[in-house]
Amino acid sequence: MMDLMEAIKERRSIRRYEEKSVPEELINKVLEAIRWTPSWANTQCWEVVVVKDNVLKKKLQETFAKGNPAIKAIVEAPVLLALCGKLESSGYYKGEAPTKFGDWLMFDLGLVTQSICLAAFSLGLGTLITGLFDHDKAKEIIKVPEGYELVTIIPMGYPAKKPSCAPKRKEISEFVHDDTF
Amino acid sequence: MMDLMEAIKERRSIRRYEEKSVPEELINKVLEAIRWTPSWANTQCWEVVVVKDNVLKKKLQETFAKGNPAIKAIVEAPVLLALCGKLESSGYYKGEAPTKFGDWLMFDLGLVTQSICLAAFSLGLGTLITGLFDHDKAKEIIKVPEGYELVTIIPMGYPAKKPSCAPKRKEISEFVHDDTF
Repeated sequence: MMDLMEAIKERRSIRRYEEKSVPEELINKVLEAIRWTPSWANTQCWEVVVVKDNVLKKKLQETFAKGNPAIKAIVEAPVLLALCGKLESSGYYKGEAPTKFGDWLMFDLGLVTQSICLAAFSLGLGTLITGLFDHDKAKEIIKVPEGYELVTIIPMGYPAKKPSCAPKRKEISEFVHDDTF
Repeated sequence: MMDLMEAIKERRSIRRYEEKSVPEELINKVLEAIRWTPSWANTQCWEVVVVKDNVLKKKLQETFAKGNPAIKAIVEAPVLLALCGKLESSGYYKGEAPTKFGDWLMFDLGLVTQSICLAAFSLGLGTLITGLFDHDKAKEIIKVPEGYELVTIIPMGYPAKKPSCAPKRKEISEFVHDDTF
């Protein structure tokens, strides 16, 4: 059991992992957290590829630029959650996207990603949200079909080292406005 | 104190609200949850307009199509969180967006939205994620400047009626794939 507010405040990006594998039971709890995430008109556009194969992890690592601070995590973490979404689902009605933002796939996968990071943290697991890689090459490696996008690859495992402090955040007064912007 | 997994599973979209106002202290706790949400390279592109003025709420309601199931919530809820984001920040390095998804604003605001909904729920408050309205008209009403987008308006308050059951979710086996899609 972990307090929600504590999870939100204490979760950190974890870039180094222990070799220890993650029990299936815990992976399932994280997948269950995805299931209960809200989505546009309950479209649930998410698809998750759970990558444990070392050869695939190595290949996925090659889609990251050298110097990316996530690069070690991709092969060290026992599990990668490759988060994909179905195109033309979230934000769509009968093939039409009525808002100025078109496809809300990125928004809904953002919702899911926070569920993943918080659920994992509450189970003693670290995660890292990665987005700076060659998405099309990574899609090929894990065989993501047409009509879907791979958006983020999230390494998950037991933290080898906990970051000493959190990246600095803006004060509430810096991003909050009363009644008008 | 509320268990994280319980919050993820029990949070529901709330469409009807009591008249009771929300204490500043609770609003601040929700804003604090936004603060600690992760973002692309800690860019924190979010900006939040806290709307309590009834005239503004009424005007914002007019940007929703009649028949939208969110329409009552926009005026009934004591607080609206109008969630905006700075363009060309998340996913950008020196003015360039290196990934195929360009601006990751929608993704980062998705992360924030899940923080808002979970934090509110843990405080006994209901929320609703709305996205189907005229964004440009709504931006004008709350004076969102150029270079920013208003993405979602989230009513927040004490639920007048709790939904009896959750919208049906896919089974884990329907969206999870092992090693390849």
